[in-house]
Amino acid sequence: MPNLYDRIQGRSLERLAALSDGIFAVAMTLLVLDLHIPTASQVHSEGELFAALAALGPQWIAYGMSFLTLGIFWAGQQTQLSHIAQGTRDLTWIHLGFLFSITFMPLSTRLLAEFIAYRAALGIYWLNIFLPGAMLYWSWTYATHASLIKADTPIEVRGSICRRILIAQSLYAAGAALCFINTGASITAIVLVQLNYAIAPRLGRQKK
Amino acid sequence: MPNLYDRIQGRSLERLAALSDGIFAVAMTLLVLDLHIPTASQVHSEGELFAALAALGPQWIAYGMSFLTLGIFWAGQQTQLSHIAQGTRDLTWIHLGFLFSITFMPLSTRLLAEFIAYRAALGIYWLNIFLPGAMLYWSWTYATHASLIKADTPIEVRGSICRRILIAQSLYAAGAALCFINTGASITAIVLVQLNYAIAPRLGRQKK
Amino acid sequence: MPNLYDRIQGRSLERLAALSDGIFAVAMTLLVLDLHIPTASQVHSEGELFAALAALGPQWIAYGMSFLTLGIFWAGQQTQLSHIAQGTRDLTWIHLGFLFSITFMPLSTRLLAEFIAYRAALGIYWLNIFLPGAMLYWSWTYATHASLIKADTPIEVRGSICRRILIAQSLYAAGAALCFINTGASITAIVLVQLNYAIAPRLGRQKK
Amino acid sequence: MPNLYDRIQGRSLERLAALSDGIFAVAMTLLVLDLHIPTASQVHSEGELFAALAALGPQWIAYGMSFLTLGIFWAGQQTQLSHIAQGTRDLTWIHLGFLFSITFMPLSTRLLAEFIAYRAALGIYWLNIFLPGAMLYWSWTYATHASLIKADTPIEVRGSICRRILIAQSLYAAGAALCFINTGASITAIVLVQLNYAIAPRLGRQKK
Repeated sequence: MPNLYDRIQGRSLERLAALSDGIFAVAMTLLVLDLHIPTASQVHSEGELFAALAALGPQWIAYGMSFLTLGIFWAGQQTQLSHIAQGTRDLTWIHLGFLFSITFMPLSTRLLAEFIAYRAALGIYWLNIFLPGAMLYWSWTYATHASLIKADTPIEVRGSICRRILIAQSLYAAGAALCFINTGASITAIVLVQLNYAIAPRLGRQKK
Repeated sequence: MPNLYDRIQGRSLERLAALSDGIFAVAMTLLVLDLHIPTASQVHSEGELFAALAALGPQWIAYGMSFLTLGIFWAGQQTQLSHIAQGTRDLTWIHLGFLFSITFMPLSTRLLAEFIAYRAALGIYWLNIFLPGAMLYWSWTYATHASLIKADTPIEVRGSICRRILIAQSLYAAGAALCFINTGASITAIVLVQLNYAIAPRLGRQKK
Repeated sequence: MPNLYDRIQGRSLERLAALSDGIFAVAMTLLVLDLHIPTASQVHSEGELFAALAALGPQWIAYGMSFLTLGIFWAGQQTQLSHIAQGTRDLTWIHLGFLFSITFMPLSTRLLAEFIAYRAALGIYWLNIFLPGAMLYWSWTYATHASLIKADTPIEVRGSICRRILIAQSLYAAGAALCFINTGASITAIVLVQLNYAIAPRLGRQKK
Repeated sequence: MPNLYDRIQGRSLERLAALSDGIFAVAMTLLVLDLHIPTASQVHSEGELFAALAALGPQWIAYGMSFLTLGIFWAGQQTQLSHIAQGTRDLTWIHLGFLFSITFMPLSTRLLAEFIAYRAALGIYWLNIFLPGAMLYWSWTYATHASLIKADTPIEVRGSICRRILIAQSLYAAGAALCFINTGASITAIVLVQLNYAIAPRLGRQKK
């Protein structure tokens, strides 16, 4: 049995949610800080300004992709927490680990924008998609195991959350593996998987 | 019908509001980070300090204008969310798209401050006013369509929100179009429209 | 009477409080970003590191003073909002004006740290204490006038809030005016007034 | 007895918690901003990229350690506030002092990453662990003294919170003192103590 102090720690899911919202908000906005714009001394006409902005292509792609990643993990964490009845200190630390991996996103985005043709940069970026996913998976299995799930959560929701993480992460891993053939193809695949999670369910729904 | 995981995602309007407040707070404060101040080595008297600060005119204008824009969109989103009874994953992603366009504001502000006489910079800035407006319009028509509006919301409020967005965006577009004549006139027009939404209703009210 | 859209805008004091907490949190933390530390190439011994840090004196003073200022205004706004029953769009925009002046604090701090012996820098810094105070005063008189104060707020609290702002601002103005004699004396006076609001009431209490 | 204004100030623990979550969120995310990545011009192969990232070792260690520190203090403050029934202005200012020391964390992390072999840098870093601990200790003894603790808080919880701070700070101080022998050993010891608070209770629990 944990000692008294550990039993009273980390009970507040509200504060965990507030800290998470804060970290996601800062990370999402900081991405932009790393975007470089041309300076006035380099540009002498409207056309040159457009050309200079277009030349920054890799950073726009890395930025858009990272916002999607952050949005997906934010939505995923929110879904989990909304089905958990109560916090514990272990759950708190699992989520702090999750948030730790989230705070790296601006850094691996910068790295990818700087080295968009390098497998090493793409591998690190993929790790930054894999690790938050692994932490969320751990969070959910821990919460199930420790009986922290809300009583009114249907049994099929429990499996659904694990399944969603496993399928998404398999797709991301497959996309990342494409970098051994071509880093451009790999990035395209990852963005398509992300867009699928952000948009496609709408299409799927309309077909039915 | 969406699959199970999509039905349980994105239900928490509280967390969406908290993420939004965080992003607006960071974006509003980051604007200042891009303001450059003179350095001690350039300035040798009180007069020179004032002159150096005054020479930074364009960045002060771009900054004030961007704070107004952010304030207007923050108030607009708050008004909408206060009339929505419940979130869905689609609504969540529409608002993540809205927030994505908001995170660009410090960037397009920096661009405008650097290239205040360029139509391209003004056009991009205008896009950054148009896109959040379009997302909010989409959010409201989606919420109406998906029956997410609170039951006690009067029917005339529904139309009022759409109308407000359409009129404001028409005025912004007209202001932005002035840049084909003169970018200074265009910026003045946009700021006047913004001040109208921030202040003028007080005047209008006192007249009645 | 305001039009329909203006009547439904800005009702949520919770979101105004959340935006304010976010802006204060970012501003308080950003102050540190502007603190420069010595680089490894300049320093070759433990003693030189201490000396290099001590040489940065003006920036530590400006930083500590700005954190105090932000803390005082955060506490002041919180006190006001806790006595207001409901928001309106005008109240929202008064507080957005207040927050606008708050976002300038990292900038005027940077300016003061760079030009600590310049009256112009101190004058701008003082403006950054005066303006938020003026906005809070306006907010409270507006709220009183528009009958937004909570019914259970004792009548003497109303006067107390106005009086507090007027006395504090008079002391700040007197402190700032000392810069015509000596900027060091002026900064000392302002810090003493701030410390009085942060700490002294404890002393006052113990005396009684 | 404090004057009227001081009695009505700082009552909202919710806003104090929100400000704290914001400051911790920004501080945790800002740490990454100071991490430098290699630039494209320095790197010509996948191997060189890995080598360049590995050469940044000290900054990764300082970063991980600081995230742990911030997580530990965030959890500690949350535990305290969850047992306090009501705020006062003195409690608010003690916590503003706590948050002030937290905002220094990105700075002392940067200093430690730049001067990882210097005792002065480690000493300042340790101060940044000691001061928040001291403020939290003060906060809890003040709250006990001023009868702000929730009525349903078991009497043994009160002692448990003080004991936890005293033991942890003794261990940190012992770890920091190792720097007189070797700064590497000192950093290792501090990280082990931190990991003990983040992870070890799980091991301890499973043994029982």
